[in-house]
Amino acid sequence: MKKHILIVPGDGIGQEVTEVGKAVLVKIAEKFGHEFTYDEALMGHVAIEATGNPLPDETLEKMRNSDAILFGAVGHPKYDNDPTAKVRPEQGLLKMRKELGLYANLRPIKLFDELLGASSIRPEILKGSDILFFRELTGDIYFGEKGRKNDNNTAYDIAEYSRYEVERIARKAFEAARTRGKRLCSVDKANVLETSRLWREVIQALAPEYPDITVEHQFVDAAAMMLIKDPKRFDVVVTANLFGDILTDEASQIAGSMGMLASASVGDSTGVYEPIHGSAHDITGKGVANPLASVLSAGLLLDISFGLKEESEAIISAVDKLLKDGFRTRDIADATTPADKVLNTQQAGEELLKRI
Amino acid sequence: MKKHILIVPGDGIGQEVTEVGKAVLVKIAEKFGHEFTYDEALMGHVAIEATGNPLPDETLEKMRNSDAILFGAVGHPKYDNDPTAKVRPEQGLLKMRKELGLYANLRPIKLFDELLGASSIRPEILKGSDILFFRELTGDIYFGEKGRKNDNNTAYDIAEYSRYEVERIARKAFEAARTRGKRLCSVDKANVLETSRLWREVIQALAPEYPDITVEHQFVDAAAMMLIKDPKRFDVVVTANLFGDILTDEASQIAGSMGMLASASVGDSTGVYEPIHGSAHDITGKGVANPLASVLSAGLLLDISFGLKEESEAIISAVDKLLKDGFRTRDIADATTPADKVLNTQQAGEELLKRI
Ligand SMILES: [Mg+2]
Ligand SMILES: [Mg+2]
Repeated sequence: MKKHILIVPGDGIGQEVTEVGKAVLVKIAEKFGHEFTYDEALMGHVAIEATGNPLPDETLEKMRNSDAILFGAVGHPKYDNDPTAKVRPEQGLLKMRKELGLYANLRPIKLFDELLGASSIRPEILKGSDILFFRELTGDIYFGEKGRKNDNNTAYDIAEYSRYEVERIARKAFEAARTRGKRLCSVDKANVLETSRLWREVIQALAPEYPDITVEHQFVDAAAMMLIKDPKRFDVVVTANLFGDILTDEASQIAGSMGMLASASVGDSTGVYEPIHGSAHDITGKGVANPLASVLSAGLLLDISFGLKEESEAIISAVDKLLKDGFRTRDIADATTPADKVLNTQQAGEELLKRI
Repeated sequence: MKKHILIVPGDGIGQEVTEVGKAVLVKIAEKFGHEFTYDEALMGHVAIEATGNPLPDETLEKMRNSDAILFGAVGHPKYDNDPTAKVRPEQGLLKMRKELGLYANLRPIKLFDELLGASSIRPEILKGSDILFFRELTGDIYFGEKGRKNDNNTAYDIAEYSRYEVERIARKAFEAARTRGKRLCSVDKANVLETSRLWREVIQALAPEYPDITVEHQFVDAAAMMLIKDPKRFDVVVTANLFGDILTDEASQIAGSMGMLASASVGDSTGVYEPIHGSAHDITGKGVANPLASVLSAGLLLDISFGLKEESEAIISAVDKLLKDGFRTRDIADATTPADKVLNTQQAGEELLKRI
């Protein structure tokens, strides 16, 4: 198979982990006889520093011309403590989602048995959890009009959803449920929000087309609680942009570490695959970041954008072997991990490549 | 002390648990020589059934004329599955908050040692957690304009905060932090939302007035994760209405059971004290609801609205004794609880009164 892959490392540890993710793609191409070509582009804080724009036109052009994008992370702490900054790394992220029509963010939360002990949730509650989140990514309060009024003393943000926006992601979630446990939980706040009432109407209207799927509706506050209390209760979860942002990060802790979780953003055009861990500037440049989420993102990329199931499985099973052999990066090591089994980013990459 | 207390049982198990909460107030008054008078009023689904209005004027009048309100819960499942219902129990709740100026919702999350095993979080992560949430209660997306446009095909909700609204709850949180661990965590989504950027500006502007308090800002998604990963990291948390709704429910699971958690809503006028567990129609009428959150709400009422610390402590220590004596209601019982120690609502009330 001939494919062109764009690498967008972005900020912070994004640089360090996508290097390993790319190495895995190179190894897979070699082993399975594919012809992957690569290019690289700037985004986020590094793009602001270089061009003044968090998503330069050149990057966007390269994105449109690639078959899939392996993405790192964007963000820098200097913006967090400067609420008045006009240009921000996250604007690049939001613009990319809009421009590429990436309306669905998929986050598989599946635990590697070896890591059950890494979570603060009790193993007996966790074991067997396997959740697939569908977070709507281009609507809601993140993209509505926002601003100030009353002499800068009042701030507002408008949340908005159209029937069409809800329906297209709901269909993806219903279809995914069909290939899994046949249960769909739609999360909203329909007892208070009008956008949530529209959301629920659309799910209810679609349900008869999927009679094999059991549909449940949960309020977002109840879901935030239930995710900890009984994660096995969930199969496919579909929810709006803001609620999905919160619940998927919460669920990442169920999985023990953000360092292990991959995500896919898909829609009308090129798909983007990225770890969920963010730029993590506290450990940037130290070479200790866990590259396995970027590696698993590369696996998702092969599966979803190229339909290469066997290749994707080869990556997951290499990660599984690495863990079964006792190796850990610092973030998933514990008191029982021998010092010589704790790997830095580069070592984890090397050990992983041996197992593909 | 002479005080007039309004009991508003509301819907579902609200009826059953406030009966016990009131009995505790009666016992405390007798023991400590206070003169409490009581009245009762309708709200929620029961008020809709009786009057067509979830918060009848008569109830609101009684609320304004009382010194404190012991509240049950409102809600009924029939509205959840009918997104088109025009009159809803929760409207009563929102209106009460606006009319009484209840802009601050306080939720103490403190664990009784005997119940460490009831949580799905590991005991060693939990032990020693003691968090006090301040959730803003009258602004944000819950109260902004909402509606439909484009032939009913687009829904919108407007989130709004004024500097004044943020400042008054922030001051309450700063002041509470002073009497506790001197740490304040403000939760927002300032990397995306304008309301959050205003929120953060106000907190940052107030911080110099409280130089003894260590202030931290967290994004809501990170906070949702951190609450599970390391709950002891938090002391006082202050956040907006929607984020607070989600995080406090999540935190309730940290505490093992919603059945044990009380809350206070305070502001410009009469304070309202209620369990956080909601109307729980699945167990309504079975007599098995845990009344301890209503009992602890009565304790908060005495403490915050009447300044009766000793009386409030007497209630908390009675709950503690009940648990140490091995008694449990069904929701907090586990495999090790002997059958004769599992109490129904009425029995739990009786055992508790013996210990005051
Ligand atoms: Mg997030
Ligand atoms: Mg709630």
